[in-house]
Amino acid sequence: MTTTTRVPQEERTRAMRARLLEATVECLVERGFSGTSTTLVSERAGVSRGAQLHHFPTKNDLVVAAVEHLTEVRGAELAAAARALPQGPRRTRAVLEMLGDHFTSPVFTAALELWVAARTDATLLAAVAPLEQRVGREVHRLTVELLGADEQQPGVRELVQATLDLVRGLGLAATITDDTRRRRRILDRWAAVLDETLHPEPKGAR
Amino acid sequence: MTTTTRVPQEERTRAMRARLLEATVECLVERGFSGTSTTLVSERAGVSRGAQLHHFPTKNDLVVAAVEHLTEVRGAELAAAARALPQGPRRTRAVLEMLGDHFTSPVFTAALELWVAARTDATLLAAVAPLEQRVGREVHRLTVELLGADEQQPGVRELVQATLDLVRGLGLAATITDDTRRRRRILDRWAAVLDETLHPEPKGAR
Repeated sequence: MTTTTRVPQEERTRAMRARLLEATVECLVERGFSGTSTTLVSERAGVSRGAQLHHFPTKNDLVVAAVEHLTEVRGAELAAAARALPQGPRRTRAVLEMLGDHFTSPVFTAALELWVAARTDATLLAAVAPLEQRVGREVHRLTVELLGADEQQPGVRELVQATLDLVRGLGLAATITDDTRRRRRILDRWAAVLDETLHPEPKGAR
Repeated sequence: MTTTTRVPQEERTRAMRARLLEATVECLVERGFSGTSTTLVSERAGVSRGAQLHHFPTKNDLVVAAVEHLTEVRGAELAAAARALPQGPRRTRAVLEMLGDHFTSPVFTAALELWVAARTDATLLAAVAPLEQRVGREVHRLTVELLGADEQQPGVRELVQATLDLVRGLGLAATITDDTRRRRRILDRWAAVLDETLHPEPKGAR
């Protein structure tokens, strides 16, 4: 009997935690880090203050857990997008489109709020910095794989890193102005640079 | 007599305003947007609350004026750095170093705090967005000039824009981790790509 009653309870707890973390991400996107409060999050998640405080006693606990949650959401989003990529000559541009979409999504926006808040908050930084490094390594590895890049070749690793810094810069630019058309042209051009370097072909082959 | 007494007063006022704006930038860098208050700024600037409130009645007034001030500081910094650039084959890399330094300076950090705060604050956004567009155009024009890029050539304009988005992305990455060495390798690589495209030379010419 203990087992059968415990399982639903665990499920309810897990679902409640997920609602709290998703509400935290939504709050970060809509109101920014400073506009996010535990009270607002519990209201939005439809979770009692008591239950919320039990799981995440402080705003930092909540936000740090939301970063972890964000990391999983990011990973799942990217993996899903990666499976839908075309093969052949359109692939590089499609990989860049996927990365561009990712770095202009609400997930990026919420992460940006955390990065910037962590810059002047040592406790938050201690939780955010190692996570960001882990996510950074995973996104790098995925990008290498998707682009079919050979990092043994000199300069290829740096070009992949530059690609990720480029989309991060485009993401930051997109937070205050909608520059979708500009971004599209830049990614077109970048795809050409990448293809020339990563997949050089004899002249006239395409 | 009116003229001789008014001039020193105007000078004192200008100096006081400059101190307030510089203190605002310092506060933004050290404590972030949410940690910046008019009280802290007037203490740091050594200006009475009354005088400060007379010139900048609200935090937004102060911060918006500081953005304008930042814009001038940015422009002067870049112009000074541009005059010291070498000619010849090392020039492209030196231009990238200059941009990389600029986008990892306290000026960038303070601007980042404003961008992110403006994302969820319509009043601040109304002041920050047009300024950022103006600064963006100026930095683009300067970069084209310094790189000796011919924007009439197809794809060159996008390559210059990509360069600026790349250094913006590197600047954002640098806010929470010191990645100077990584940045150096990426800029080395990107300088090679830019030179191949912007200044193609016959094989073996260098």
